[in-house]
Amino acid sequence: MTATITNAKESLSQESELRALRDALHQRLDQLLPAGGERDRVGAAMREGALAPGKRIRPLLLLLAAYDLGCDKNHPGLLDLACAVEMVHAASLMLDDIPCMDNAALRRGRPTIHRQFGQDVAILAAVALLSNAFGVVAGAEGLSDACRAQAVAELSAAVGLQGLVQGQFRDLNEGATARSEEAIADTNDLKTSMLFSATLQIAALAADATPAVRQKLGCFARDLGQAFQLLDDLADGCSGTGKDINKDAGKSTLVALLGAEAVRSRLHEHLHSADQHLSVCQHGLATRRFMHSWFSQQLATFS
Amino acid sequence: MTATITNAKESLSQESELRALRDALHQRLDQLLPAGGERDRVGAAMREGALAPGKRIRPLLLLLAAYDLGCDKNHPGLLDLACAVEMVHAASLMLDDIPCMDNAALRRGRPTIHRQFGQDVAILAAVALLSNAFGVVAGAEGLSDACRAQAVAELSAAVGLQGLVQGQFRDLNEGATARSEEAIADTNDLKTSMLFSATLQIAALAADATPAVRQKLGCFARDLGQAFQLLDDLADGCSGTGKDINKDAGKSTLVALLGAEAVRSRLHEHLHSADQHLSVCQHGLATRRFMHSWFSQQLATFS
Repeated sequence: MTATITNAKESLSQESELRALRDALHQRLDQLLPAGGERDRVGAAMREGALAPGKRIRPLLLLLAAYDLGCDKNHPGLLDLACAVEMVHAASLMLDDIPCMDNAALRRGRPTIHRQFGQDVAILAAVALLSNAFGVVAGAEGLSDACRAQAVAELSAAVGLQGLVQGQFRDLNEGATARSEEAIADTNDLKTSMLFSATLQIAALAADATPAVRQKLGCFARDLGQAFQLLDDLADGCSGTGKDINKDAGKSTLVALLGAEAVRSRLHEHLHSADQHLSVCQHGLATRRFMHSWFSQQLATFS
Repeated sequence: MTATITNAKESLSQESELRALRDALHQRLDQLLPAGGERDRVGAAMREGALAPGKRIRPLLLLLAAYDLGCDKNHPGLLDLACAVEMVHAASLMLDDIPCMDNAALRRGRPTIHRQFGQDVAILAAVALLSNAFGVVAGAEGLSDACRAQAVAELSAAVGLQGLVQGQFRDLNEGATARSEEAIADTNDLKTSMLFSATLQIAALAADATPAVRQKLGCFARDLGQAFQLLDDLADGCSGTGKDINKDAGKSTLVALLGAEAVRSRLHEHLHSADQHLSVCQHGLATRRFMHSWFSQQLATFS
């Protein structure tokens, strides 16, 4: 009984901490992407892409991991680094959604950016968000120049031909044909784990973590990315996610290959493994709590 | 007579120096963007976009300006910085050409990237080139970490909402309506001068130039960008440029507003002013020679 009350209290305090962090992220994104005049449609599209209510998984992960690694809660550049990662993520969603890619109509419960602003503006806004993100990282306060340069390199690697771009290309071009489990996992790595990894490496740079910790964070990111992508595949058949449903129909996903139950069990394996990577490095309480509660909530919505 | 022979000799030696630099740039771009397997269509599109024979104005400008400012010709990172600027330029051309933007069929004498590889691949390749460029700058050798971070910030500013992205948006959305001379010049600044400016600022960072020199380089970049854009407008009606002709028909350009002769004279005013900015800072011989001979050659082809 006491344990249950303690858990409930912890969960409440975690929820309110996450709410406060989400508010801070929103406020800082709002400052970094100031509203322009009425004719500034690219600026408006950038704001809509980055500020529309989202889960903010990546920037929250960056903040929580940095705190877990001992980074000062008042670090002057940490929020900016988190916002930069969210800008990259928002840019990638805007591009994934355009007609010649996934041709999606709905994202975060709203019409997609190209549906609101036109395809030309959506593409330009994505490029500007991406480019802005690198500028924000390069100018983040409270970080040594060496860490800034390394953080730019991490982000660049996560976006480029060995990251998001390759993941999206494979998904577009190989998703419709039969793929092995390994091929699907590789694509999921590129689509999701690479940006998680950059996110955590940037947190580690801000917290001045050791190479050993950084290596463990890399393993954690890979498991987390896999779990995340499996959750996304499981969610595809469900309404209420704020995205188009059944986009994966006919697509070679692990759900199609192994069935939903096997995928759920594999998801839990990845979470368990992710957990272990963090526990070995003696850090990661807030990060782990966040990860577990988030996955529990999401899995509960479509069980 | 002697002066003419000296000029001819200088011109020959300049031509062979430029050829050697262009070869070095091509070779380094080839290394930075290695050919992938047969299925790596994004990688192939990146290579085609960056390696197709181009004028290499921006990277040459970066190298020559850095040499003029006293940078060692064996600086280990200078070529990489120049390649990064060319990657950004190539990415911007690939995006400008796609159907929802300028819908161009021909570029550098070849079918545009989306015509060769499809629109999805063209967009992904542009994003990867752009992201790669930031990574190359962040890792450039022989530069202090502070200079790397500043160079990333310069490049980010040149691409984003106050640079190429805004220039392309205005050109797309306001080009068809009547514009004032000032509005056209502003758009040309965004489309062209901003990346020239970043190019020269990065050269200045590599050469450890003073703030006063950097300020003059900024003024030089603005004039050069304006001259460049006027040349581009003058060239639009001509064949043999390797691009679609008459793309500006019905567009509000300075050629349409003032006529070709007035634009030629304005172009020369900008070149003169550019010259003066460089002469004041007691540097810039190779840069100025390059600029003058390039404009003379180009103007001669369609006079």
